[in-house]
Amino acid sequence: MAALGAGDVAAVRPRVAAHVRRTPVLELAAADLGLEATGAAPVVAKLDLLQPTGSFKVRGATALLSDPDLAERLAQAGVVAASGGNYGLAVAWAAARLQLRATVVVPASAPAAKLDPIRALGAELLLVDGVYADAFAAAQALRAERDAVLAHAYDQPQVVAGQGTAAAELLEQARDLDTVVVAVGGGGLLAGTIAAIVAAGLRVIAVETEGTPTLHAALAAGAPVDVEVSGLAASALGARRIGAHAWAARHHLDRALLVTDAEVAQAQHLLWHTARLVAEPGGATALAALTSARYRPAAHERVGVIVCGANTDPASVLEARPEGAAFGHRSAGVDPPVGGRGFPR
Amino acid sequence: MAALGAGDVAAVRPRVAAHVRRTPVLELAAADLGLEATGAAPVVAKLDLLQPTGSFKVRGATALLSDPDLAERLAQAGVVAASGGNYGLAVAWAAARLQLRATVVVPASAPAAKLDPIRALGAELLLVDGVYADAFAAAQALRAERDAVLAHAYDQPQVVAGQGTAAAELLEQARDLDTVVVAVGGGGLLAGTIAAIVAAGLRVIAVETEGTPTLHAALAAGAPVDVEVSGLAASALGARRIGAHAWAARHHLDRALLVTDAEVAQAQHLLWHTARLVAEPGGATALAALTSARYRPAAHERVGVIVCGANTDPASVLEARPEGAAFGHRSAGVDPPVGGRGFPR
Repeated sequence: MAALGAGDVAAVRPRVAAHVRRTPVLELAAADLGLEATGAAPVVAKLDLLQPTGSFKVRGATALLSDPDLAERLAQAGVVAASGGNYGLAVAWAAARLQLRATVVVPASAPAAKLDPIRALGAELLLVDGVYADAFAAAQALRAERDAVLAHAYDQPQVVAGQGTAAAELLEQARDLDTVVVAVGGGGLLAGTIAAIVAAGLRVIAVETEGTPTLHAALAAGAPVDVEVSGLAASALGARRIGAHAWAARHHLDRALLVTDAEVAQAQHLLWHTARLVAEPGGATALAALTSARYRPAAHERVGVIVCGANTDPASVLEARPEGAAFGHRSAGVDPPVGGRGFPR
Repeated sequence: MAALGAGDVAAVRPRVAAHVRRTPVLELAAADLGLEATGAAPVVAKLDLLQPTGSFKVRGATALLSDPDLAERLAQAGVVAASGGNYGLAVAWAAARLQLRATVVVPASAPAAKLDPIRALGAELLLVDGVYADAFAAAQALRAERDAVLAHAYDQPQVVAGQGTAAAELLEQARDLDTVVVAVGGGGLLAGTIAAIVAAGLRVIAVETEGTPTLHAALAAGAPVDVEVSGLAASALGARRIGAHAWAARHHLDRALLVTDAEVAQAQHLLWHTARLVAEPGGATALAALTSARYRPAAHERVGVIVCGANTDPASVLEARPEGAAFGHRSAGVDPPVGGRGFPR
C-alpha cells in the first residue's frame, strides 16, 4: 500500500472545513512547559481538542461521511462504526450533521458515561458481549447485512486524509515549523499528518505511551502485530495494532518515541496550569514527548504539537501526577531514560 | 475624566505583548450556542481565558509593571495590590516575570485555594481582617509607607489600557466585527475595550450578572455608587462600584445588559459541551448575554465576545445548570424576560 499524500488531504479539505472547526494554535514558551533551562524555542500547539465532540476525530468521520462516492449507500443504509470512544462520538456527530443514519457498535463493558453522548446525538447504539474485536466483527456483519458504509477508526483512506487536515491547517497557521509531533494509537492521525506535511520537508515525530505501543511493536517485529494495551491513554490510543496506512508511511517518520503514563499526566497538568486547557491523556501524549525531554529540539527548532483530545474528567487535570512519578527534566543532573528509538529514514 | 482612546492602548501594546499571549479566537456557529433558530451569524470568541494565570488580568498588570515612568519606584519598593482573586494572581505573575517585589493584600477570609498560587509565584501575602475594603485600605497604607506602586484592579490608566489590548487583538483577528460583548465588574476590561475599538466604529455591549450590577446601579443613580455583590460571578466581577474610567467611557456604550446566574452557568456548560473550554462564571458572563438571547444580534451582525477567565473548579462546568433554572430560548414560545436597558449614545 502506498502512503497517502498532500493531494489526498487537499481533496477532502473543503468537505471537512464545511463542518468542523479550523481550530486555533497557541504558542507556548519554553518556560510555560518547564523547559526554560533547555533554551528551546516556543512550541506551537494546535488546539484540536476544541473540536466538536472534543477530539480531532470529527475530521476523519466528516471526510468519510461526505464522500460523494459513498453518498448513495450512506443515504440508503447509513454508516456503521465500532467504537465506544472518541471515534464513535465523532461518527455520531458527523452523521447527525449530515442527516445520516448511524449505528455505533460497542462492547457491553463500555462505561455508560461514554455512551450517553453518542445516544444523545441520535445514533443507534448496539451493545455486544466481549471486547472491542467482538464489536468490530459485529459492525462488519451489520455493514454487510445492510449494505451500509463501515467507518473504520483509523484505516480508511478518507478517514486518514480527513485527520491530515489538522496538520495541513497547522502548516498554514505556523509557516516556520521544522517539526510536527503527533500521538499514535491506530495511526490515523499519524498517517494523515505525514500525508499532509512530509512533502513540505517537515520532520514528523510519532509518540506512543508505554501502554499503547502499536507502532513500536510493529517496528520491532518488522510488521504490524497485535499488542496488549493498558494505562492512562488506553481508551483513546488503545488500538490493538497499527493501521496499514500508518505502516505504509513509516519511512517518512523521523523518530518514534515512548512516554510513560506519569509523563502524560504531567503534560496534562502543565496544559491546565499554563493555559487552562483540559487535554485527555491521549491528547497530551505528543506534548509529553517534549515536556519529558524525550524529544529535545535543537536550538531554534520550531516544533508544532497536535493536542488532539479533551474527553476526560476535567477535574483530573488539576493534579494529574501519579504518585511516585519521576520527572527527569526537573531533577537536576538526572538524565531521563532514553525512551525513543531512531528510525532509519 | 476623559475616556482613554486607541492611542493609549497602542502605547502599551508592545510592552504587554512582550509578556502575555496573543490569545487565539475561535468561531462558534449559532448551532454551537443553541441559537440555530435565530439565524445568528457565527460568534467570534476571544479566548483570553488561555492567558497565564487563567485570566485577561495579566494584560493590565503587565502594562502597569512595565511602565518606564514607574521603573525606578518599582525596582526600589515593588508593587502592592489588594486582591484575593484573579488580579492578585496576575500582579504576582507579572512581578515574577519582571523580577519585582510584589505584596498582595487579601482579606483573611479568602479561601486558601485562591492564595496558594499567589504565594507560589513568590509574592508576599498579607492577610488582613475584614472584607475587601479593609484589604484595599491596608494596601494603600503599605504603598505610602514603602513608597511602592499601588496596582489597582481596574481603575488606573495603564491597567485599563493593558486590558484594552485584548480587544485590539480581536479587531485584527476578526476584521469584520460589528459588535464586541464584554463582561463588567469594576469596568477595567470594559473601559479598555471601549478605548481600543470605539474609534473603529464598533458597538460595545456591557454585560453584568444580577448579583454584580455596578454599572447598572451607576446608570440608575447617575453616578458610581456602592452595590452589594453576590452570586456565581462575585469573586471575579464583584467590585463594589464601577471605576471612574469605565464611567467616563459610558457614553460610548451601546447597551448594558444583566444576566442571571443560571444563564451564566448555562453559558459555561455550553462552552464545555461545544468546545471543551473551561470558563469561570465571570469569564462566561459576556457569552451568556447571547446564549440567553438577552442580546439578539441582527441578521448578519458579526459579534465578538471576550471569554476572559477560567479560574474555577473545572468539574463545575460539566453540569453547570442550577436547579430550577429556566432557559428562555430553549422553551419554545416563551419569550425570555427583558434584561437589558437601552443606553443613549
